[in-house]
Amino acid sequence: MRALPDLSLYLVIGPGDIPARSLNDVVRDAVRGGVTAVQLRRKEGSTRAFIEDARALLALLRPIGIPLIINDRVDVALAVNADGVHVGQDDMDVEDARRLLGPDCLIGVSVTTLVQARHADGTSADYLGIGPVFTTATKPDAAPALGLSATAEICRDTRTPSVAIGGINQHNAADVRATGVCGLAVVSAICAAPDPAAAAAAFR
Amino acid sequence: MRALPDLSLYLVIGPGDIPARSLNDVVRDAVRGGVTAVQLRRKEGSTRAFIEDARALLALLRPIGIPLIINDRVDVALAVNADGVHVGQDDMDVEDARRLLGPDCLIGVSVTTLVQARHADGTSADYLGIGPVFTTATKPDAAPALGLSATAEICRDTRTPSVAIGGINQHNAADVRATGVCGLAVVSAICAAPDPAAAAAAFR
Repeated sequence: MRALPDLSLYLVIGPGDIPARSLNDVVRDAVRGGVTAVQLRRKEGSTRAFIEDARALLALLRPIGIPLIINDRVDVALAVNADGVHVGQDDMDVEDARRLLGPDCLIGVSVTTLVQARHADGTSADYLGIGPVFTTATKPDAAPALGLSATAEICRDTRTPSVAIGGINQHNAADVRATGVCGLAVVSAICAAPDPAAAAAAFR
Repeated sequence: MRALPDLSLYLVIGPGDIPARSLNDVVRDAVRGGVTAVQLRRKEGSTRAFIEDARALLALLRPIGIPLIINDRVDVALAVNADGVHVGQDDMDVEDARRLLGPDCLIGVSVTTLVQARHADGTSADYLGIGPVFTTATKPDAAPALGLSATAEICRDTRTPSVAIGGINQHNAADVRATGVCGLAVVSAICAAPDPAAAAAAFR
């Protein structure tokens, strides 16, 4: 069985989240502050640019043992030999992705309801991304916020380890951890911070 | 070596090209009229929808021996086991795509200049898509039109078989074939026609 890497502080980031800085600069700072895993997402732009960003991040992260997970794009993950792929409900089916990526690749899947979580629990997904826990400005098309109690219910009802996402910041982090998730996925609380290293450290 | 399928009348199509009809209906008609190869492109929408469209088209095309080529998305092509992938200059590098797709998958690459064509000629691409030959409304971000003489020059200067694309219709088809290309790629002259079968037949 695959060993799950440390997803306890899981940064989700793309060029659109940090208009004024370079991806590698922000990720380097965030990892210095304590981020344990990084997901690269890129909904706009070309395949080539996505691959270039992913290769640059891998060159930074692989030597220090931090996994790089690619949002949605199995082709990009395969091209750069990333550590994992995270798929949403509108992305490739988990079992199709598993077939293409092989047994050793980390696969995560977003779930926004208990029904989706129970279904994902029966697949070869390595972890669930549960959310949005709170409403968030960084994903305007997100499903309704689950809140803490529904997040905890999904954790109790599934065997697959979970990461919570959506509006998580330094102030609500302890409450979210108490739901039973094994990690917190964070976007703007780190990406939009003037000091990403300090913002990440504040979660630990 | 891979045998190149018949690309002589190569339909490029996506849901955005045919707002009022279903993909499979238009493709079925176009093949009945003489289309020999189909490229599915989908720049908007989810990965899941792209895969669903591709699977539906494959179910139509594979039994009748018409190759289905996926635009840009190597992951979609792998998930559905398509016949080929067509990459642009901003998509995955041809050799990365070859490594992921294997020796038997058809790979085409768009070239808009002689320099690009000469470079692509040295790769494992099976065919070049040369264009735009003429200005076209279906790709507003396209490079400047090459015209017939530059298209013919690219054909003469490269060994890889070529398909021409961009503003090709029933009236200029004979002139474009005379440049030396082995096929004509057509979008709106078939997709926007009230009778796609008759429009395709008019090219033959």
